[in-house]
Order: sequence, then structure tokens, then C-alpha cells
Amino acid sequence: MKDVMEPGPFPFSAIVGQEEMKRAMIMTAIDGGIGGVLVFGDRGTGKSTAVRGLAALLPPIEAVSGCPVNSRYVSDVPDWVVLKDDVLAMKPTPVIDLPLGATEDRVVGALDIEKALTKGEKAFEPGLLARANRGYLYIDEVNLLDDHLVDLLLDVAQSGKNVVEREGLSIRHSAKFVLVGSGNPEEGELRPQLLDRFGLSVEVSSPTDIDVRIDVIRRRDAYDRDPVAFGASWASSDADLRAQIVDARARLATVEASDEILRDCAALCVALGSDGLRGELTLLRAARALAAFESEPSVMRAHLKAVAPSALRHRLRRDPLDDAGSTTRVERVVEEVLG
Amino acid sequence: MKDVMEPGPFPFSAIVGQEEMKRAMIMTAIDGGIGGVLVFGDRGTGKSTAVRGLAALLPPIEAVSGCPVNSRYVSDVPDWVVLKDDVLAMKPTPVIDLPLGATEDRVVGALDIEKALTKGEKAFEPGLLARANRGYLYIDEVNLLDDHLVDLLLDVAQSGKNVVEREGLSIRHSAKFVLVGSGNPEEGELRPQLLDRFGLSVEVSSPTDIDVRIDVIRRRDAYDRDPVAFGASWASSDADLRAQIVDARARLATVEASDEILRDCAALCVALGSDGLRGELTLLRAARALAAFESEPSVMRAHLKAVAPSALRHRLRRDPLDDAGSTTRVERVVEEVLG
Amino acid sequence: MKDVMEPGPFPFSAIVGQEEMKRAMIMTAIDGGIGGVLVFGDRGTGKSTAVRGLAALLPPIEAVSGCPVNSRYVSDVPDWVVLKDDVLAMKPTPVIDLPLGATEDRVVGALDIEKALTKGEKAFEPGLLARANRGYLYIDEVNLLDDHLVDLLLDVAQSGKNVVEREGLSIRHSAKFVLVGSGNPEEGELRPQLLDRFGLSVEVSSPTDIDVRIDVIRRRDAYDRDPVAFGASWASSDADLRAQIVDARARLATVEASDEILRDCAALCVALGSDGLRGELTLLRAARALAAFESEPSVMRAHLKAVAPSALRHRLRRDPLDDAGSTTRVERVVEEVLG
Amino acid sequence: MKDVMEPGPFPFSAIVGQEEMKRAMIMTAIDGGIGGVLVFGDRGTGKSTAVRGLAALLPPIEAVSGCPVNSRYVSDVPDWVVLKDDVLAMKPTPVIDLPLGATEDRVVGALDIEKALTKGEKAFEPGLLARANRGYLYIDEVNLLDDHLVDLLLDVAQSGKNVVEREGLSIRHSAKFVLVGSGNPEEGELRPQLLDRFGLSVEVSSPTDIDVRIDVIRRRDAYDRDPVAFGASWASSDADLRAQIVDARARLATVEASDEILRDCAALCVALGSDGLRGELTLLRAARALAAFESEPSVMRAHLKAVAPSALRHRLRRDPLDDAGSTTRVERVVEEVLG
Amino acid sequence: MKDVMEPGPFPFSAIVGQEEMKRAMIMTAIDGGIGGVLVFGDRGTGKSTAVRGLAALLPPIEAVSGCPVNSRYVSDVPDWVVLKDDVLAMKPTPVIDLPLGATEDRVVGALDIEKALTKGEKAFEPGLLARANRGYLYIDEVNLLDDHLVDLLLDVAQSGKNVVEREGLSIRHSAKFVLVGSGNPEEGELRPQLLDRFGLSVEVSSPTDIDVRIDVIRRRDAYDRDPVAFGASWASSDADLRAQIVDARARLATVEASDEILRDCAALCVALGSDGLRGELTLLRAARALAAFESEPSVMRAHLKAVAPSALRHRLRRDPLDDAGSTTRVERVVEEVLG
Amino acid sequence: MKDVMEPGPFPFSAIVGQEEMKRAMIMTAIDGGIGGVLVFGDRGTGKSTAVRGLAALLPPIEAVSGCPVNSRYVSDVPDWVVLKDDVLAMKPTPVIDLPLGATEDRVVGALDIEKALTKGEKAFEPGLLARANRGYLYIDEVNLLDDHLVDLLLDVAQSGKNVVEREGLSIRHSAKFVLVGSGNPEEGELRPQLLDRFGLSVEVSSPTDIDVRIDVIRRRDAYDRDPVAFGASWASSDADLRAQIVDARARLATVEASDEILRDCAALCVALGSDGLRGELTLLRAARALAAFESEPSVMRAHLKAVAPSALRHRLRRDPLDDAGSTTRVERVVEEVLG
Repeated sequence: MKDVMEPGPFPFSAIVGQEEMKRAMIMTAIDGGIGGVLVFGDRGTGKSTAVRGLAALLPPIEAVSGCPVNSRYVSDVPDWVVLKDDVLAMKPTPVIDLPLGATEDRVVGALDIEKALTKGEKAFEPGLLARANRGYLYIDEVNLLDDHLVDLLLDVAQSGKNVVEREGLSIRHSAKFVLVGSGNPEEGELRPQLLDRFGLSVEVSSPTDIDVRIDVIRRRDAYDRDPVAFGASWASSDADLRAQIVDARARLATVEASDEILRDCAALCVALGSDGLRGELTLLRAARALAAFESEPSVMRAHLKAVAPSALRHRLRRDPLDDAGSTTRVERVVEEVLG
Repeated sequence: MKDVMEPGPFPFSAIVGQEEMKRAMIMTAIDGGIGGVLVFGDRGTGKSTAVRGLAALLPPIEAVSGCPVNSRYVSDVPDWVVLKDDVLAMKPTPVIDLPLGATEDRVVGALDIEKALTKGEKAFEPGLLARANRGYLYIDEVNLLDDHLVDLLLDVAQSGKNVVEREGLSIRHSAKFVLVGSGNPEEGELRPQLLDRFGLSVEVSSPTDIDVRIDVIRRRDAYDRDPVAFGASWASSDADLRAQIVDARARLATVEASDEILRDCAALCVALGSDGLRGELTLLRAARALAAFESEPSVMRAHLKAVAPSALRHRLRRDPLDDAGSTTRVERVVEEVLG
Repeated sequence: MKDVMEPGPFPFSAIVGQEEMKRAMIMTAIDGGIGGVLVFGDRGTGKSTAVRGLAALLPPIEAVSGCPVNSRYVSDVPDWVVLKDDVLAMKPTPVIDLPLGATEDRVVGALDIEKALTKGEKAFEPGLLARANRGYLYIDEVNLLDDHLVDLLLDVAQSGKNVVEREGLSIRHSAKFVLVGSGNPEEGELRPQLLDRFGLSVEVSSPTDIDVRIDVIRRRDAYDRDPVAFGASWASSDADLRAQIVDARARLATVEASDEILRDCAALCVALGSDGLRGELTLLRAARALAAFESEPSVMRAHLKAVAPSALRHRLRRDPLDDAGSTTRVERVVEEVLG
Repeated sequence: MKDVMEPGPFPFSAIVGQEEMKRAMIMTAIDGGIGGVLVFGDRGTGKSTAVRGLAALLPPIEAVSGCPVNSRYVSDVPDWVVLKDDVLAMKPTPVIDLPLGATEDRVVGALDIEKALTKGEKAFEPGLLARANRGYLYIDEVNLLDDHLVDLLLDVAQSGKNVVEREGLSIRHSAKFVLVGSGNPEEGELRPQLLDRFGLSVEVSSPTDIDVRIDVIRRRDAYDRDPVAFGASWASSDADLRAQIVDARARLATVEASDEILRDCAALCVALGSDGLRGELTLLRAARALAAFESEPSVMRAHLKAVAPSALRHRLRRDPLDDAGSTTRVERVVEEVLG
Repeated sequence: MKDVMEPGPFPFSAIVGQEEMKRAMIMTAIDGGIGGVLVFGDRGTGKSTAVRGLAALLPPIEAVSGCPVNSRYVSDVPDWVVLKDDVLAMKPTPVIDLPLGATEDRVVGALDIEKALTKGEKAFEPGLLARANRGYLYIDEVNLLDDHLVDLLLDVAQSGKNVVEREGLSIRHSAKFVLVGSGNPEEGELRPQLLDRFGLSVEVSSPTDIDVRIDVIRRRDAYDRDPVAFGASWASSDADLRAQIVDARARLATVEASDEILRDCAALCVALGSDGLRGELTLLRAARALAAFESEPSVMRAHLKAVAPSALRHRLRRDPLDDAGSTTRVERVVEEVLG
Repeated sequence: MKDVMEPGPFPFSAIVGQEEMKRAMIMTAIDGGIGGVLVFGDRGTGKSTAVRGLAALLPPIEAVSGCPVNSRYVSDVPDWVVLKDDVLAMKPTPVIDLPLGATEDRVVGALDIEKALTKGEKAFEPGLLARANRGYLYIDEVNLLDDHLVDLLLDVAQSGKNVVEREGLSIRHSAKFVLVGSGNPEEGELRPQLLDRFGLSVEVSSPTDIDVRIDVIRRRDAYDRDPVAFGASWASSDADLRAQIVDARARLATVEASDEILRDCAALCVALGSDGLRGELTLLRAARALAAFESEPSVMRAHLKAVAPSALRHRLRRDPLDDAGSTTRVERVVEEVLG
């Protein structure tokens, strides 16, 4: 009795502008190891529209049928799962939405109350982290979430494992996903410690050009009035992009990075004074993903330049003597160091 | 053993003045996609009277009998509902009151404790959001509600879906409703992020003209002393308005908006410096609803001018150099941009 | 095994002075629609004595026997009540005391735990609001109550309906009562929003005349030493007052209010700058009740003057340029407007 | 298997000095309607020693055997008590100690969990207030108690009834007791509203005379080393005091108070500017109890003078222009008014 | 399957220096009525080492076998204990450690959940206070404990009885123990009210003499490397001390205190301005214990001088005009008063 | 169905630089009695990488098969463990990760809910402290943990015993482990009391030399792309280090410390003004472990100098007159005292 023919979300390729955000999402679709994406920006700039569009765009995954953590092979299915059979099936790349008000129990999983009450046995009921395995986890207004929960999500995203130690349970399962969080810089900030653990950050803002705004209104109005027809008219653009991502994934392992490129990464981060080494490691991975997306055999300076703002802007220390925004500061240093 | 012949609420058409509030409510009755209405104003200005009057005015809906979310077709009924039969029936447009002290459980729905205790099974008991589907949800003093709950309500109102991830439940169902919230600007403000997510906002105030006040007292006194007779004397005014709304709903899909109108929308918002693009999208939808209400084939500048204050006043940034209230600022810019 | 011949409370008519408080209570006994009474004042000024005396004074009500909400007719008994028979009986006007520490559960009613545990069924156990239907609800030190609970009580008092949406219950029943709250202005204030929702407010203070104080001590001492004899000596005064109230109730519907009186009401409120329109509506109702009490066929200016302080003093905005207390300000404006 | 021959507490009559405290306790033993006693003072000044000594001194009461609220007659036993027989028995005047950490449940009584779990029925398990009926309730450091609980205790003490509206219970039973609270003025103060509801207040302090201190040490040391022998040596002093209290109780109802005495009470309170009328009422009762204790037929000015500080010092408003302590202020006014 | 031959704690007599702390602990071992000991001092100064050493040093007690409160005689065993037989046995003096995170339930005892669930009966499960009866209760960092719990512990320690009024239980049992609390003056202070209820207080600090420090390191290093051998080498010193304590206990009841000694006690406390009379009472008891320890037939001035700092330093009022620490102030006054 | 051939963590010997951190970890692997290690430093400096690498490096332990606390001998297995057989087996040195969000229950162990519900018996379910016995416990961002929990962990780490007094349980078991905590000095500090209880502290920072950074990136990139091959290439370095640790453990008991060395320890701490004596005791133990690691027969000044910063820097008092960081201050004093 489900809804038949529910119209799809607003097509990813129909989004007007916002190139940095779209590229960052695509990079993480190519190399999930880059880490999460943090999207800062004005309200009403289509952050959630982009994530939902991305969901529809990504290629499907092959997974063990009935496995709550979308295991790729039967041998990866965790101990606590009881499989009915060991068939593999295709399913859409999971894009899980962390709804406001979701409790920690439902996020990490918890004791299955029904089984505990009726059978007196302690079974694990997987949560949203299980469902997000091998896909995306989207959090709107991540800055409003409890620091503790953000920390936990970043921990899991980074380690790729969800470890549950509560209510007498001691469970672990794969939870490899890309965390996409949107945030409004006007309302509470994330701690630097948390910022650093996001792979990329992007800034979005309302377009100020009137013609661009008209474009946005026109497309949105068209979609609102007939979403099915609008989706059909953008289907081939979405398909092209999907093919390009699949190709880049296959190519990624072979993209080389020369010692000069490594030196550029380090020099950039030293010049920017970014703490720790996550900056250069992420910069290198994102640049390699971009090279693969552009079908290049090796990482080039142009790739570093293109992704440096996304990879580094959230890792700068506040500089009280420098009024420039973090984007400007990154671009200025990129110019000085890479020429 | 229910009350027989309970007198109806104060008739919507008998409300003296408060034209902007009444128009905003009517617009959302024509196009639910406009989003919620936020009513700011002095205490005792008839905010809740208007909502309750609106409830009695709206045309009834056809829905699957026994479906707790008022599904229009049997195929829309959610999985977790057990229907006795698949008969369709007419019922009043639901107007659900969110009572003070309603817990989040009762709002979003929760585990059915009775079934859990007696049958040991995990059934879902739908909440107020289910009952509000295809209707109105009214919250008095929305500014006193926990931000978290307001956020949740706006999320559901916007997506049209209620997603419940708690207590071992993982449920979703349609929850398309118009949120009407009243607020007192003197007591705590809503965050800008929340304001932006309301479609329209209106301001109401006590009339200062003594004759108007006498009118209000006289009508109220008449209603208090004999509500049935008073209701009867306004029944045909209410019926005329209802017919006009039904007609506008049918007409809505055919109302055109020219490129000039789109450009006016964008120009207005750029001139006002409103963040994001929700401003122009809502402006367009509200203007189209007004055109339909006035039986016009296309949106005209007059429609934009009429609804601009309601659609934009709650989206302005504070301007420390401009003492004028937000209504004045919107009207001044409308004058400059649209002439 | 109950106490036999428990002595009654201190007789209402034996209270020395405090005329405004006594009149306000009598007005609400004539027209319950006037709304609650808020009694401000020094400690030890007999606030609770007056309420308890009022309880004993009021005429009994006819109600369905065994109905927990004191329904007047069998057809008014709510769905969830299981009646043994449908006999009508007389019972005293309920005057319910909200004890300190009463939980919200017991106030609004809650799941009947005993039935839930033993029969596994979800029955409703009515609370204090049910018992207060058609009577009085008294709260000592209402300013110490949680704002949320005060709000809820005022909501119910105004709508006349108790709506319970919690613990899987969805119950509604009549709860028409007059809320009487005492407060000490020195300890925490009520929000203006709450103040406005009380119908009348009165101020009480310790008498400063020594002979009056001696009167109070003598009567109290006499009551404390022999409450039964003291009660007997005031029984006929109480009976006279009861008869006068019953007569006024019957007369109320016929008392006329001329357009000049309506204009006076509006002019007074505009001159005082009271927000909203609850001020003039309450003023009119209280004046009509007073006219009925005095057996007059129509409301006169003298009635407005008499009740204006009680009806308006708690609705004034703070005026930083006017040092006068609110009572003085009301009286001055009454003098200016009504002459 | 109980302790055999447990030594008694330190004898009331062996307490050195602290005459005001001892007299106040004796007055409430003669007329329980005087209200509670609040004992302010330095730590280590024997406050709890005095209460425990009072417990051992008071005459036993006759009560229905097995009644948890010590009912005097079978007809007074509450509904919810199941008696095995209806025998009367003598028992010591209850002096109940409210231990630190006692929960509100144990104070007012609560649902009997054992019965609820094993029999599925909702029985009431009486609390400390039930056990204190017809006796004393002692609270050490009442100023550290939650205001809410103090309020509740004073409510019950004043009304003589414990009303329980929680956990689905709706219970009431007699709870007539004298509340004795000790407080340390250095640690948090009670609200004036609470202060006013105590009948009497006394101040205790460490003696500054060395010989008095030696007396205290010598008696305490003697008691600590052989409590049984020490108790025996003071038994007849205690017995004399008990006889005098029993005699005063019988005499109390006949002690007259002339109009001049009433006028003195009122004049004193007006001169002191004490709020409310509880001051003069308590003053009169305490003076009458003292007259009875001294076997006088009527209240005299000397009695008023003797008890005025205890009855009034805690009801004064702070006077910023008067540096004198409250005791000094009361004594000065007593001198002026009563000569 | 317990550990065999677990090495003992660091021997009490092997502790280098810290004479005041060691003497205070010994005094309370001789006369438990002196009250608790509060140890202030730097971290790492062997506070917990001393308590654990004391535990191993003290003579064993004779107790009813299987009694959870270590009752001395079968007639002292509380009602709620079910004994298997009535044999007496020797057991080590209990020294109970209050672990961080112990809940109030486990401290005072609570409903036995196992019995409640399986048998539906309400049995009492004794807590740490029961186990500490006739022994020591040690709390590390007592200043970090909730005031409420400290208060409760001091109450029980002083009254010698644990009264439990919660969860439907009404239990009492002997709980005579010495409370030893360590505290760090840099982290939160105890309220004066709490300080006064400790019998003795001592100050410890790190030795500043290098040779002493080397001694400490050498002994600790020796113990860490071979605790069994180290314990053996100090066994006879510990045995001598134990014998001296046993002898002092027997002698205690016969030690006399002359009137001059009582006068000295009072004079000292008056001169120091210590509130209340606990100061002189404790001073006298501690001096008598010291006299017994030194085999003297009566208390002498030297004993008073020796114990005065421990008995009085925590009872001084802050003196803003006197910069001297409390130890110096006590010593100065002792010098002036006792010469 | 577990993961087959999961690649190991980043090899400990492949970590570039960070010598102090690596040495501190090795010292505690040689002598667990040194106490925990606190790692301060910038984000992204490989703190958790080092701990995980250490886990893979350490030699396996022999333990009773099936014992949840890894007991070495059957005679050490706690009472509450039910063994199936008494076989000994080799298992990796446990390195337990305390996940963010672990509840106190799961840390210390708790009532086994499953057994309580199904069998009605009160069994203990061991927690993370049990699993960490004889190994390591790692806490990322220990400064974000609740002080109370840190305190508890340090208590257990120091005493080597886990004492559980809650939920009706009274359990104790061995819990000898090394606590490794990482902290970010920018986010909240630990209380001095807690700092002192860590054995060693080290500071880590991002390398500023570009070639070093390139080395880090290159190794990390290599590991990320093929962890198995990278691990293989560092296996023999890890094996050499493991052999050296095993040898040092055997040698430790025989390493002598002369009186001059003890005097040096004391002199250093006196000169630094570190509170308490934990400083010199830890200094001596760490120096002895270093001597054993370097195969020296006795502790030498060079060993003291090498470990002094780690052993002492977190025990200094803030000195407002000395701007130097704690490392600089320790090094300066070491230079002055030891030459």
C-alpha cells in the first residue's frame, strides 16, 4: 500500500550555481575516505535540495539481501544478524537523513525492546548508522546538534566502525559513510576540534545576480508545478554525471602524486599555519579525486588549487590581525605558495 | 453520549478588521504549499478566534474511512495501518490544536504502550501530526514552545512527511498541513532560522478607533449571549467565502506568471536584502493564490504588492541604521521597485 | 468511618472588610464567564479563608450521579465514563483546592495505572480539572506555580474544555470552572500574558485601623474556640447572600447594555492604553453581573465605575513616567472618562 | 530482637539555660494550634537535644490500636485503613524526625509498591505525616530543605489535613502536628512567606559565661559516660513539668482574654508594622497558653510581654533605617505600647 | 577462587612523619565518640595510605556471624535480618571505603531488587553504612561529595543510627562508625555547618626536608618492590601500637577530668570564639583519649594542649582582621589561656 | 562471519618523530606501575594512531580462557565468574578503547539485565575496566570526559581494583591497566588533582619542518592505499622493539637505584616545588624503566634527565611570575640541580 510513482527529488544537475558545494559532494562520492562535508551558508540556499538530489544521482550498490548494514559480501555480515538466505541484490546508495529529535539510541542502535520483553533475550536493533553504511548520512543544522552526538558521528565516520557499549550490549559493525552536515554560521559554532574532523567545507550563499535568481525561481516553480515532467527533462544530465563518477572511482587507485605535489601540500599547510596534518592529507585525497574525475593520470597543481579552499578553510586558526575571511586567506596563500 | 447541538465557533466572516490575517489564512487554504502562517500581535486580538473560525469555514475532505492520517486514496494508507474496510467518507478539514503541555510523543506519535504491554508487539500509535494531515495545525504562543519542537514541526510541515526514529520505531507517514502559530513579540523571539521557514507572517493589533472597538464588543457580546442565533446570522457570508476558496483552488494550476513577474519577485528580494530564496518563491506562490482568489488568469503586480508584506517582513535582516519597522521597510521598497 | 459533624469553614459573611475581594468572588459566582480572580496581597489577610467560605455559601448544583465531571445532563457525560445508572442528584458547588505538589497528571487526569497493570487496558482517570467542572479551582500562591501549569489552567478555564494528549490518551471533557489564585506581589510576578487572562484582580491588605483589627481577632478567636456555634450565628447572613446570588443568576440574561455603556467601556480601555480587547469585554460582563446583583434592569455607569479597578488594573502597561500604582491610575482615568 | 534497655535521650529539664526555646516548645505542647516553632541559632547549641528531650517528657496519647495515623476514636480512622480490631491503647506522643534525604513520597505517603506489584491493587502507604499526627515533626536545618517541601509541610500543619493527589491516588487524612524546625541564619534564609507561617520563633546562642559552659560540659560528660544514671537523677524534674503541662491543657479552654488584651495585641502589631493578622492571633494564643501554664484565670499583659518576641520577631519587615536586630525592635515596641 | 596471600597495605607505623594525622586516627580508635576526622592537605601526602594502614592495625571485633551490621550480641541484631545460627565470631575491624560513584542507595541501603522481582516481597538490602558499623568509613575527597550526602553521613555518624525512609521502606539499624574524610582545600570548601560536625581535623603537607623525602621514597620503593617482606619488617611496630590502643580503650572509662580541666576547655573555646559547645566537648574527649593512650589516670593540661589544634581549628570563624592561619590562631590562644 | 584478513593499524615504528610520546608509552609497557600517560597536543598529530600501533606491538599475554578479566591464574579468577574449563591461552595485550558515549555502567560493569529479566537473578556483567585488565585503556579527549568519570578511572588505575557498589551489586575485580588519555589544551583543562594522578605527560605538536611533513604524508598515503603491504614493510622494526620491551621487563626488578639517585629525585621535586611525593616516586620508576630498556644495571642521572619532563611537567604549580611553559621550567631546574 505504498505511494506509487512518487516524484523524485529536485535533480542534482538542475541546481543553479553553487559549484563548490556540488564539486565537494561529487569528490566524496568518488573517494569516501576524504571524510564528511560541512556546508555553511544562508538559509534557503538549497543545501538539503542538493543532498537529496545527490541521493538520486549516485550509482546503486550491490549488497547482501536482508543485511541491515548493507554488507557487500556474506562474509562481512556481522555476527548478530540472522540472514534468511545469502542472495546479493542491487539497492540505491543509501542516503540517510538524521531527523531532528532522533535519539542516540536510534542513531547508534540499541537493545531490541520487543525481543527483550517478549523473549527475554538481548538482541541488537541496528540504528541509522547501520543503514548509512556504504552511503551518506545527512544532518541539517549540524551546529544545533549536541556536541557529544556530533563527536560520536565523526568518530564513527572516521573509524568506519560503530561500537556500541551500552544497555549490556557490546556490538560493533561497519559504518562507512560520508557525513554531510549543513550549518548556519549565525547560530552557534562548532568547536575547532570538530571542524577539523570534517574532510571538506564549502560556503554557499544566495546569488545576488537577478537573472540567476530568476533562473532559480523559474526552475523551482516548474518543479513544484510538475515534478515528474521536470525530472524527466534533466534525466540525461544526471545520467552523464553518474557515469563520470563511476569512471572516476575506477580510475582513482591509479592516479599518481609526485613528490613535488606532496611538497606543495605541506608547504601550503605550513604557510597557512593549519594545526595537525589532516589538512595536507585531505588536500591530497581531494585533489586526487578531482584528477580522477577529470580523467587525468596524475595530480596536478591545478587540482590542488581547485580544492584547497574546501580542504583547508575550516582548519585555520583565528587571526586577530587579519580581517580577511577564511576563504580569502586560503586563496591568498595558495597564490603565494603555488603561484 | 456526546454533546448535541454544540454551538459553533465565532464565525470567520464576523471578525471585525484584521484583514491581513484573514487574507493570509485564506491564501494558505487555497495553496497549502505556501507554508505556515505566523501571527504576531497583542494579546486579546482574536488570533485563536480566527483559526477556530477558519476551521468551520473550510470545505470538507474526502478520506479513507478509519485511516488515522486521513489518506485520500486507499493506496496512500501507510503500511502500519490496519483498515477494516476501504470505504471513502467526507470529513471536516482537520484543524488540530496543539495543546500546551502536549509531549513530543503525542505530537509525532509513539510506541503504542497498550499493545506493547498486552501483546508484546511494537505497534505505532499516530500522534497529532497524523491527525493534522491535509489540514491545519494551530499552536498558540509558538514562541513559548521549545525551539526543538518548533523546528521539528516546521521540518514536517515543509517535507510533508513525518519520520519517527525512536523507541525502536522506524515509521514514516504523510503529514501535509499548514502550521498556524501565534506569537507575542514581547515574550521571547523565534530564531531567524525558524522565522524564515514560515511562509507568511502577519501583524495584528487592537483597533484604536473607538467605533471599531464598540463593533467588536457588540458582536462578541451578541455571540456570548446566544451563539447559535449569532452563527445563523453569519452563515451565508461564511458560505460565500467557502465557495470562493473552492473555486480558487480549482483555478490555481492555470494561473500564469510572466517573466516580468518573476523579475519583480527577484528584484524585490534583492532590494530588501532578504537571505536565501524562500522569499521570492513564497511571494510568487502567495501572489498566484491571490490571483486565483480574485479569478484573474495571471499574476499581476497588484497581487505582488498585496502579499509582499506578509511574504517578506519576517525575512529581513535587522538594519541598525534603519529605525523603521519591518512592515514599513517592505512597503517602502515595494514602492521603489514596483512603483 | 468518616468524621461526623465536622465544623464548617469560617463564614463568608463574617469576614471583616476586604469588600473588593468579596465582590469579585460574588460576581464570578453570578457569571462564571467573567473568568478567574487573582487576589494580590499581604500574607495573612484571609485570602484562603474567603475562598473556603465562598465554597460553603454557594448554592448546590444538580448533576448526574457518579459522573466524575459533574455533568448536568446524562447526554453531557463523556464517552469514557461508565455510569451505573442515570439518576440526577444535588451536590455542593465543587470548590477544588489545588494542593502544593499536585502533579500535572493529577491536575489534568492520566492513564489509570491500576487498570493498565491489572487489565492491560488504557482507561482514563480524571484529575482535579474534572472535579472542578461547574465550580471553583483555588490555587494558593499561584505565582509560585510553574508558568507552564498556570498557562494550562488558564487555557482550560477559558475554553471550558480539558484536552489530554499524553501517554497514549486522547481525551476531552468539560471543565468549566472559575480559577481563583492568590499571589504575593513580593515573590515573583506573573507574565503580562498570564495576567491578561485572569478576568478580575483584587488587592487585599491588612487593615490599619486598630478597631477593625480587634474585630478580626475577636471573630477569629470566637471561631477557633467554638466553630459550630460561631457558624450558627452567621448562618442567616450567609443564606441571604446565597439567595441574592441565585436571583442575580436568573436575572443576568435580561440585563441590557446600551450603546453608551459599550462606548464607555471602549473609551475607558483606550484611555488606559490596555492591550487587546479582553479589558472591555470583561468590564462589560462584570458590570452586568453587578447590575443583576443589584436587581437593576440595565448596566449603568455606576456599575462600570465600581468594577473597573478589578477588571482593568492587571492589564495596564508599565508606565515609567507615572509613579502611581495601577489602582490609582485606573481610578484617575475612570474619573476623567466617566466623570 | 530489639535493643533492650536503650538509655533515654538527654532529659529536657537538664538542659542548661535556653529558656525561650524551652518555653516555646512547652507552649505548643499546651496548645498545638499555636503553630510550629522555628529555632534559629548557632550550631552546637542543643536544638535537637531539646526536641528529643521534649519527646520523652510529653504525656502519652490514647489511640486506636493499629491505626497508622494515631486516630483518637474508631470513627476517625480513615477509609483506606483496614483495622484488625477496634481496641484503644496508650502510646507515647509521637515525635517524628524528618531524616535528611527523606523523599516527598515517604513524607506524604505514596502508592504501596509491594501491593501494586503483587496484587495489582492501588493501596496507600502512609508516610511520616501520618505518623506525626497528634504529635511533633522535627526538621533539622529546615532552611536547607527545598522551599516546596517546607511549604507543603506548613500547609499540612496549618490545615491539619494531608491531601495526596499523585500517582493515581486521591487520599486525605488528619495530620495535626507541631512542626519544629531548626535553622542556621548563616546558611540561606527562609522566604518571608514561609517565616510568617511558623507560629513562634526563638533564638538560641552559645552561652558566653564560662561557668554556664562548664555546667553544660559537666552535664553532657556525665550523660555521655552513664546515660541511665544521669536520666534517673533528672526523672522527677521531668515528671513535674509533664504534670504542669497536662494541667495547663485542661485549663486552657477557660482562660479569658479581655477586650483590653485584644486591643494590646492589635496595637503591638500595628506599631511593629507586621504584615497580616497572623501576628496578633498567634500572640493571643501563646499568651493564653502561658496563662494556663501559670494557672492564671485570664490573660494578662505580663503574658503578652513574655511571648511577644517569640510570636512576632519573625514577622517584621526589614527596616533599612533601623539597625537593631528583630528581638531588640520587638522589645522596644513592647515597652512603648504596653509600658 | 580468591587471591591467595595478597600482600597487606603499607604498614601504619612505617609512615614517615605526619604525626598529627596519625595521632588523630589513633584517638578515634580509642574513643569512637570523638567523631570523624577530616584530613586536609596536598595531594600525594599519603592520606589514603594512612587509613588503609590503620585498617590493618586495629584489633579484631567479636560479632554475630552472618549479621550484616556486625552486631555484638544476638539481641542487637535488627528485625529485618534472618540469622542462620547465633554463633559469635572474630572479624577484622571494618574499614569501609566509600568508592567514587557510589549511589545513595548503596550507601544507606535500599530495597532488595532481586527479592522484589522474584518473590514480590519488600526486603531491605543493607548498604555501606551497615558494613561500617563498629568500624571506619573512609571518603577520599569528601569536599567533592554532594553536601547532601556528607550531611547524611555526618547525621548517621553522630546519631549512631541509620534511618531509611524511602521506596516504601522504613528501616533503622545501628551504624556507629568513625568517618574519615580527606579533602583538598584548593577544591571547594565544606560548609561551616559540616565542618563543625567533624570531631577532629588535621593538616598534612609534603615534607620539605630532603632527607625526609628520601626516607619516604626509599620506604615506598622498598614496599613497591616487595610488599610482603616490607610488611614483615614492620609487623612488630604495628603490634606494639595495637596493644597500646587496646589498653587505652580499657582504661578510658576511668580517666578523670577535674573542674580545672573543664574550665580550661571552656576558657579556650570562649577565647577562640568558636560557635556552639561541640568544641569543648570534643576537646575534652580527645584529651581523655590521649591521657588513656599515655596511661595517665587523669586528663592534664598537656593533653589539652596537644589535641587543641585538631579539636578546634575547623571551628573558628573567619577573622578578616587576623591573617594568621587557623592553626596559628589556635596555638596562640592556647599559649595565652593555658600558659 | 567475521572480516577475514583485516589490515592491521599503522605500525608503531613507522610513526615519524614524536619521540617523547613514543618513549612514554614504551616505559609504561615495561612497568605498568608508572601510571597513566596524558598526551597533550594539537589535533591531527597522531595520538590515537600511536596507541593503536602500540596495541599491535605489545607481546601477547597468557590468560585463563574465558575469564572476562584476563586472569593470569585460575586462582585469580573472581568469584562471580563461571568458568567452563581451566585452560590457559595466549591472547593479545588488551588495548581497550573507551568510546565516546560509553555509559558508566558499561565502564565499570553493571547488573546483567538479561539474567535479571529472564532468571530473576542478580548477576554481574563486566564492563570495559574488566576487559582492560593487564592491558591499556585509551580515552580520546579525556578533558571532555566528566571529571567524575576521570576520577573513577584514575582511582581504579591506581588501586588496580574495580569496586562496584550500585544497583544492589557489591563486586570487586582486578583492573590493572595503563590509562592513556589524549587531551587538547585549548578545550577545558583537567583539575590539578587529576593531573597529578597521571604518571607521565607528554606534549606533541605538528612538525614544522616541511620535509618531515612530507615524510608523514608519504607514509600515510602509502598506508591508506595498501595497508597490508605497508604493514609488512615495517614488521621487523616492530618485532625488534617488542623484543627490547620483553627484555626490559625481565631486567626491571634487578635495576638498582643508589642513594644519590634518590637524593637527586627529591632535590629535583623540591626545587620545582611540586606538591606531594608522587613526583619523585614516578620519576624514579620511569628512570628505572628507561635503564632497563637501555640494558643498564642501575639508574643513572642521564635516565632521570631524560624522563624528568614527562614525569614532572604536569605537577607544577602555576607560577604567575614565570612566563616560561612547564617544559622549559622543568628543563631549567633539571639543568640547575643535576648539572
